[in-house]
Amino acid sequence: MFIKIDAALVQNYITTLATYGAYGETGVWRTAYSPEWVQATNQYASWCEEAGLSVSRDSVGNTFGVLKGTEPGGSIASGSHIDTQRPGGKYDGALGALAALIAIRSLKEQFGTPKRTLEAIAFCEEEGSRFPTAHYWGSSAIIGRASAQDPETMKDFEGETMANAMRSIGLDPSKIKDAKRNDIDSFLELHVEQGPVLEHAGFPVAVVDAITGIRHYKVTLFGVQNHAGAFPMDLRRDPMAGFAEIASGLIDTAHRMGRPAVTTVGRIHVEPNFPAVVPASVTFFVDARHPHAASRDELYKKQAALIKEVAERRGLQFTVEVLLDHAPCPSDPGLVTMLQKVCEQQGVRAMTMASGAGHDSQQMAEIAKVAMIFVRSKDGRSHTQEEFSSIEDIVEGIRILAGGMYQLAY
Amino acid sequence: MFIKIDAALVQNYITTLATYGAYGETGVWRTAYSPEWVQATNQYASWCEEAGLSVSRDSVGNTFGVLKGTEPGGSIASGSHIDTQRPGGKYDGALGALAALIAIRSLKEQFGTPKRTLEAIAFCEEEGSRFPTAHYWGSSAIIGRASAQDPETMKDFEGETMANAMRSIGLDPSKIKDAKRNDIDSFLELHVEQGPVLEHAGFPVAVVDAITGIRHYKVTLFGVQNHAGAFPMDLRRDPMAGFAEIASGLIDTAHRMGRPAVTTVGRIHVEPNFPAVVPASVTFFVDARHPHAASRDELYKKQAALIKEVAERRGLQFTVEVLLDHAPCPSDPGLVTMLQKVCEQQGVRAMTMASGAGHDSQQMAEIAKVAMIFVRSKDGRSHTQEEFSSIEDIVEGIRILAGGMYQLAY
Repeated sequence: MFIKIDAALVQNYITTLATYGAYGETGVWRTAYSPEWVQATNQYASWCEEAGLSVSRDSVGNTFGVLKGTEPGGSIASGSHIDTQRPGGKYDGALGALAALIAIRSLKEQFGTPKRTLEAIAFCEEEGSRFPTAHYWGSSAIIGRASAQDPETMKDFEGETMANAMRSIGLDPSKIKDAKRNDIDSFLELHVEQGPVLEHAGFPVAVVDAITGIRHYKVTLFGVQNHAGAFPMDLRRDPMAGFAEIASGLIDTAHRMGRPAVTTVGRIHVEPNFPAVVPASVTFFVDARHPHAASRDELYKKQAALIKEVAERRGLQFTVEVLLDHAPCPSDPGLVTMLQKVCEQQGVRAMTMASGAGHDSQQMAEIAKVAMIFVRSKDGRSHTQEEFSSIEDIVEGIRILAGGMYQLAY
Repeated sequence: MFIKIDAALVQNYITTLATYGAYGETGVWRTAYSPEWVQATNQYASWCEEAGLSVSRDSVGNTFGVLKGTEPGGSIASGSHIDTQRPGGKYDGALGALAALIAIRSLKEQFGTPKRTLEAIAFCEEEGSRFPTAHYWGSSAIIGRASAQDPETMKDFEGETMANAMRSIGLDPSKIKDAKRNDIDSFLELHVEQGPVLEHAGFPVAVVDAITGIRHYKVTLFGVQNHAGAFPMDLRRDPMAGFAEIASGLIDTAHRMGRPAVTTVGRIHVEPNFPAVVPASVTFFVDARHPHAASRDELYKKQAALIKEVAERRGLQFTVEVLLDHAPCPSDPGLVTMLQKVCEQQGVRAMTMASGAGHDSQQMAEIAKVAMIFVRSKDGRSHTQEEFSSIEDIVEGIRILAGGMYQLAY
């Protein structure tokens, strides 16, 4: 049973959807509730109707294309987000929403009406690119975590509340709780990898067995500001020297632990940040991730011990503030095994890996079994206009998604 | 022959001068050509007259108090700058200008007219705190390095040209070349140490045998911007990781070399400086100093090799731009030996050390023999309202200065 995916249709959908919010040569700038976002969801809904799916929208702006099954039971859903970074590319998010639609359309054409209901979902505001505190907003509403008060307090970069943005396109923030679902059995999300692992390993797709745990923390080292010339090295309490040693150590700890551990120091703030002054303080932000609970604890423990040891040895006061701490989200083991088998059946070479980025799936895991499929990214680029995945790889990915939905729904 | 210095007079001069531009509890904010700077120079001139010195001002605003000698030959001069940081304290600069005046006044009172002419100098704009490109401005004019065009192009933080600032207080920028001197034989500068070396060693004063060489350079490391979660450590080209290793190494190189080598990384700029993004580039500023030519070359060579090795090993492109490169300025060996002997004669415990900061003396060395005297700083603080030196230590320092002038002029 080979599932046929129409490469020309895939190409057409990707290219057309990318016209809504087109930015530069290959980019897309499409933030939640913007005019171009509304156009994109309308286009998505119209393609769903064209494929014979019944379209609905919920109170936060998620769009659904439903193919009713003949038997009862929770639905088999798939999808991803339709909003982008500022700017992002054509693939991050959008590809997963389109893949769900194309998979269901292909299954319907080749195998008719399913036993279990199938759903394609275009989620709203996963990136938090318009409302920076609203990551996973659409999927949060579906699992019942969003409240009617949230949109009144969340503001975009121009200071407009989400509530006003919603009302301006006909959504009623007071009805957010209506978006809650409890009738989804399984959720499969196809997404571009956003990293170079598949490219380096030489596979077009991967089955994702876990979404990483993420901790963001802010460290401030306080030293003593001094003259860069008159103060001997052996008497300094230099927070920049402490930072350099700590940042090296934090990064090295993740590197030595090996894949999939990662640690990034992406942001730093120095006071007073003068070329010829030993700084008074250095503040930096650490992003540390591991998808497996025990290794994650080990990583965080080693890093906390390192910060303490270096700061104390160098006579620096320090504070550590955890800004965000997401537990890892393992995929459903049954879905992972099933998808691995589908890869074999469909003749698609695939590896199994963890996701280093967060996804709507980790929200959906609260109400449904979840698993993900990754499609190879060129040069591991994402959140940029340059992100790219080939149509050949994408078709392989959609074939695995459709194969998985077939296993669950037919 | 014990030289008596009037501690009450010293205290009175320091306290009174600090009222011009008083800032907060103990600070002074007195930038070149400002109303408070004019008041301070007027006060200085009036004290010079009171002491029986003849006062003159040159075309850039340096103020001189001269005690004519009975024999021919270049004058024996001393002084320091009367401008401060924004804000600085009571001592940095001002103390050296006052010390010169008090030393000459004390010598005149105790020993009468000298054989060689004595001069007290209050220099103009050493700090570059109003006109950031005008460090050592007053002494540059005295050695003939300042040109009439300079004040037309140099601007303060409010955008006013130095030329306008000069004209507004009656100075004529076109006459700057008139400030050039070729009649100074020796120049002795007393200054607060601005570091903790004397305090840690337990000495009130030091004879300074060299002013350090300073190199400021800017390094940019270019890596590849990537997603903090999806990009494995082993495939990253992370300029922050490169920076951390290099900054640690640069600082450690100076530390291991031992005093008086110093290296500071005080300023950093990260692109894009987002918490969860492997940066695209890191730019940082290095301040590396050593007062001895051979060790200085070794320090710079090791640091350049380290930057190259780390950047290349980590696959980072890099640029190094030298922004400033001052050679060390050794003191005149004869003056150093003479001042060391004066310390013994006057019963003042003193050590010999290099200056880690730059001073007007390094300019004056172009036209005169130079040496410096340091007075102990509390906690090594400087360029801050908290800087402090005790009257006891200051009196010891002025006694050494006066003793040196006595040796040279009587």
